[in-house]
Amino acid sequence: MHISELETPAVTIDLDVMEANIRRGQELVEGAGIAMRPHIKTHKIPEIARMQVAAGAVGLTCQKLTEAEVFIEAGGFDDILVTYNIIGRKKTDRLLALSERIPRLAVVADNETVVRGLSEAGAEAGRQVPVLVEIDTGIGRNGTQTPADATALARLIADLPGTVFDGLVAYPNRYPQAADFLSRTLELLDADGIAVNTVSGGSTPSLLTLDKFPMLTEHRAGNYVYNDRKTVAAGGATPEACAMTVRATVVSVPNAEDRAIVDAGSKVLTLEQHGLDGFGEVRGYPSILVRGMSEEHGILDLSRSSRKPEIGEVVCIVPNHACVVSNLTDEVYGVRGETVEVVWPVAARGDTR
Amino acid sequence: MHISELETPAVTIDLDVMEANIRRGQELVEGAGIAMRPHIKTHKIPEIARMQVAAGAVGLTCQKLTEAEVFIEAGGFDDILVTYNIIGRKKTDRLLALSERIPRLAVVADNETVVRGLSEAGAEAGRQVPVLVEIDTGIGRNGTQTPADATALARLIADLPGTVFDGLVAYPNRYPQAADFLSRTLELLDADGIAVNTVSGGSTPSLLTLDKFPMLTEHRAGNYVYNDRKTVAAGGATPEACAMTVRATVVSVPNAEDRAIVDAGSKVLTLEQHGLDGFGEVRGYPSILVRGMSEEHGILDLSRSSRKPEIGEVVCIVPNHACVVSNLTDEVYGVRGETVEVVWPVAARGDTR
Repeated sequence: MHISELETPAVTIDLDVMEANIRRGQELVEGAGIAMRPHIKTHKIPEIARMQVAAGAVGLTCQKLTEAEVFIEAGGFDDILVTYNIIGRKKTDRLLALSERIPRLAVVADNETVVRGLSEAGAEAGRQVPVLVEIDTGIGRNGTQTPADATALARLIADLPGTVFDGLVAYPNRYPQAADFLSRTLELLDADGIAVNTVSGGSTPSLLTLDKFPMLTEHRAGNYVYNDRKTVAAGGATPEACAMTVRATVVSVPNAEDRAIVDAGSKVLTLEQHGLDGFGEVRGYPSILVRGMSEEHGILDLSRSSRKPEIGEVVCIVPNHACVVSNLTDEVYGVRGETVEVVWPVAARGDTR
Repeated sequence: MHISELETPAVTIDLDVMEANIRRGQELVEGAGIAMRPHIKTHKIPEIARMQVAAGAVGLTCQKLTEAEVFIEAGGFDDILVTYNIIGRKKTDRLLALSERIPRLAVVADNETVVRGLSEAGAEAGRQVPVLVEIDTGIGRNGTQTPADATALARLIADLPGTVFDGLVAYPNRYPQAADFLSRTLELLDADGIAVNTVSGGSTPSLLTLDKFPMLTEHRAGNYVYNDRKTVAAGGATPEACAMTVRATVVSVPNAEDRAIVDAGSKVLTLEQHGLDGFGEVRGYPSILVRGMSEEHGILDLSRSSRKPEIGEVVCIVPNHACVVSNLTDEVYGVRGETVEVVWPVAARGDTR
C-alpha cells in the first residue's frame, strides 16, 4: 500500500529511522560495557521488542502488569522487569501467575507494604520473586528517599521468604545526585553484606551520559526507538531521528493568515507540552506548529509561514511525546520510503491495571 | 460485584448521578422549547445513548465518522449529526454507505472544498446529503468566519446536486457574539430565500443560557451526562453531579508531608488542565489534588491535608475532563451505591479516522 492510501489521522513509523535508532541505542549501551533492557512503553508492540532483542537487548522493561501480560502472551521474551509497585492480592497473584511462564520476571518496590505483599504471594506460591529497590534520584515521584532507606528495604527483601533482593533501579539517571545516591547505597549494601546483582539506570537522554554512572550493570531506554520533540529538546536525538509522525488532513483554513485545522487533535497527539512550543511541529513547514487542540481538531499556526497548507492536503506532524501517542492509537503503520510495509496493532495499549 | 473488587485504576460511573444528569439536561432543553441532540463523545457508549434517547433526545451528535459507524452498527439510532468536515473520497464514501443504514444522517461543512466533495459523493450515490453550515462563534477553531460567508456556503449547498442545506451549527453558543452571528446569518438566509430547518447550539454550560439564544431549534450537550471539574468550574454543574470518578490505589508515600503516588497517571486522567488547579481532585480529601502525573503515576499533593491516605488505600479522583478519560479506557463500570451493576465497553473510543 502506498502511504497516500492511509486514511487520516494515521500514526506512522519510519522503519529505516527506527531500525537505525535501535542500533544506535544498543551501541551506546554496549559502548558503556553494560546491558540494554529497553522499555516497551514507547511502542507497546511485541514485534518491535523482538527487533530490540535481536539487536542485543538482554530483556525488556514493562511499566505495568498488563504490559507484561501482553508481551508474555505474545511470546519470545524470557526476561522481564516490571518497574512498578505491585500492590494488592489480585495483582500479586497475577504477578506470580506470570512468573510461571518465563524464566525470569523481576519487579521493583519502594516501600515495606509492597515488599510484604510480594513476600506473602511468593512464599505461598513456593517461589522467590526477584525484587529491585527503586530509588528517587531527583524526579520527585516515587522511590526510596535515602540510601539508608533503600538499604533497609533491601535487607527486608533479602530476609523475607518468597522474595530475593536483586539490585537497584533509578529513573532517570540524569541528575548529578543520582550517581551519589547509587554509590552511597552500594556502599551501605556492601557493608551489610547484601549482594547486588543489578544496578539499572534509565531514560533516553541518559544514554549519552552513561560514563558518569560506572556502577550501572544495565540501562532501560524507551523513547530512543522512536524519539520525539521532547527527546530532541533534551539533546537525546536529532530531528531526523524522529521515526514517528502523525499524518493528518487539513480540513479547514478559516483564515489563511492565522490558522488551519487538521483532523488530528488531543485524541491522537495529547496536550502534553513538556515546556515545548506548541503540541507538535509540521514536517516540511519548518515554521508551522500545532498551536492548540481540542479532542478532534488540531490548530496549526500559519502566522509565521509564507507557505500555507491547503484544504485536503495531508501534513506530517512530529509529536511532542511518542509514548503517549502509541497509547492512543489501536494500530501504527510501519513505512519505508512511501510504502506501508507493515501494520502493527499496539497490543499493550490502554489497560493499565 | 462489590466496588472494592475492581482492580485499579478503574473508571466508574455513578448510575444514580448519571441518570439524574440525563433527566436534568433533557428538562433544561425542553424548558427552552427545543430538541436535545446529545453529543456521544463524552461516553462513547451506545447503551448510555439509548438512555438519552429514552429520556427524549431526538437524535445523536457524533464528532467523527468512526463514532457514527460504531453507533449505527450498535443499532437503535435513526438520526445522527456528524459535526465534522468530511473530506476525501474514502471518507465521503463511508459517509454515503452509512447514510443508507439510518433514516437521517446529516453532516456539517465550513468550506467549499468539503461541500463539493459531499455533493459529488451524494450525486453519484443518488442521494441528498443534509449539510449544516458550521459557524465560528468565538472559539477560534473552524467554522465560517462571517454571516456572509455562511450564507454563501448555504447557497452553494442548496444549489449543488447531492446536497441539501439543513441549517446552522454553532459551538459553543456561549460567547455574546454567537447570538449576533446566528441572527445576522438567519436574516441573510431569509433574504436569499434559503429555508432553514435546524439551528443547533452546543456545550453543557450553555444549557443554562438557552434563553439568550431563542433562534435555536436544538441543542447538543455532551459533558452533562457525566460532568467533571471543568464543567463545575464553568458553572455548568455542582461537584455532586460529577458521575465519573477514577478509582486508584496509593502505591507509595515517599514523604507523608509532601506526596503520595497513585496508580492512575496521564494514561487514565490525561494532562488536560483547562486552567484548573491540578489534574484531578480526590473525593473525601477536600484539600488533596493531583499535582503532577507521568504516564502511570499520579502524584497527590498531601501538603494541605491533615489526613493522609495510606499505601494500599483506594482513592476516588474526579477528573478535569470526563470525555478524554472515556477515550483512554476500554471499559467503564456503572456503579449504584457500592455495587458494580454493569460493565460497559467504551465502544467508540480510539479510532478517529
